[in-house]
Amino acid sequence: MDAVKQQIIRLLKENIRNIPDFPKPGIQFKDITPLLKNPDTLELTSQVLAHPFRHMDIDYVVGLESRGFLFGTNLAQDLHAGFVPIRKPGKLPAETITATYALEYGKDEIQMHKDAFEKGDRILIHDDLIATGGSAKAATELVEGLGGNVVGYSFIVELTALHGVDKLPADVKKEILISLD
Amino acid sequence: MDAVKQQIIRLLKENIRNIPDFPKPGIQFKDITPLLKNPDTLELTSQVLAHPFRHMDIDYVVGLESRGFLFGTNLAQDLHAGFVPIRKPGKLPAETITATYALEYGKDEIQMHKDAFEKGDRILIHDDLIATGGSAKAATELVEGLGGNVVGYSFIVELTALHGVDKLPADVKKEILISLD
Repeated sequence: MDAVKQQIIRLLKENIRNIPDFPKPGIQFKDITPLLKNPDTLELTSQVLAHPFRHMDIDYVVGLESRGFLFGTNLAQDLHAGFVPIRKPGKLPAETITATYALEYGKDEIQMHKDAFEKGDRILIHDDLIATGGSAKAATELVEGLGGNVVGYSFIVELTALHGVDKLPADVKKEILISLD
Repeated sequence: MDAVKQQIIRLLKENIRNIPDFPKPGIQFKDITPLLKNPDTLELTSQVLAHPFRHMDIDYVVGLESRGFLFGTNLAQDLHAGFVPIRKPGKLPAETITATYALEYGKDEIQMHKDAFEKGDRILIHDDLIATGGSAKAATELVEGLGGNVVGYSFIVELTALHGVDKLPADVKKEILISLD
């Protein structure tokens, strides 16, 4: 990585706030609201997220509710791609498909519209953070279930200790701005 | 309105999908996912939303979870403003303030970070749709509760029969792309 890119990443990292014990004791929550608050980091984050995918003919950015909606639509606009929301059950109004993933206790479900894109379309999956990778893997199942071609993953933050990236296909491009323990 | 603007609005309107009986019988849900899906309408919607506020020195766009996050961050980026999320209770990790509003049966709450902006900052409140106006009014209370100056409201769709706009301050600029019965 060149020196300027390193400085940009350091600047963005300084605008991610650690909130201890949220949502429960022992969890260190990574808060991206400072990145959104400053107009320069808002624009810079979108650009840095988009850059590695500019020449990859992305048809759609798929973003996960809710925090994946924040930068996901800017990323889509920067790439001149469409945006497809993945939402929690019961939120999308037209016909949906559903994927299930494990939580620490119990399980969760996410849904996507069945007419979200066409078979063979090139899809970039985006979320603000990858932790255990459960929701990103479930998003992959939704996209592949409709015949989409997942050609990239984009996350702002990775929690490396949880090895979420290992749950995703090894041969697909992954771009992560900031890796944290 | 000039002829080109009328054509643009008609194009956007054609990309809002009516889903009958969602989320319950008798409700006509206005689905903006087709606007997001097409890269041209995604970009055009952002631009048309931003245009009336370009010379108003907006400091922050405040967007309501979840659908207000979709175009809200693009609107903020287009205006070179910051973006502040309003979320459902228990989702924002730092210290928050809360506002309550009435639903058809019962009530709902929304929250904003206490350090979201400074007193006197110029705020544009954005959501995808205004129905009864309860959540937009509650958002106004949150912003004013922190000493913010609400200088505009931006909605993609208004349901005119529900008169939501009447709940908002009469002397503040309101821009609505599409009015539906």
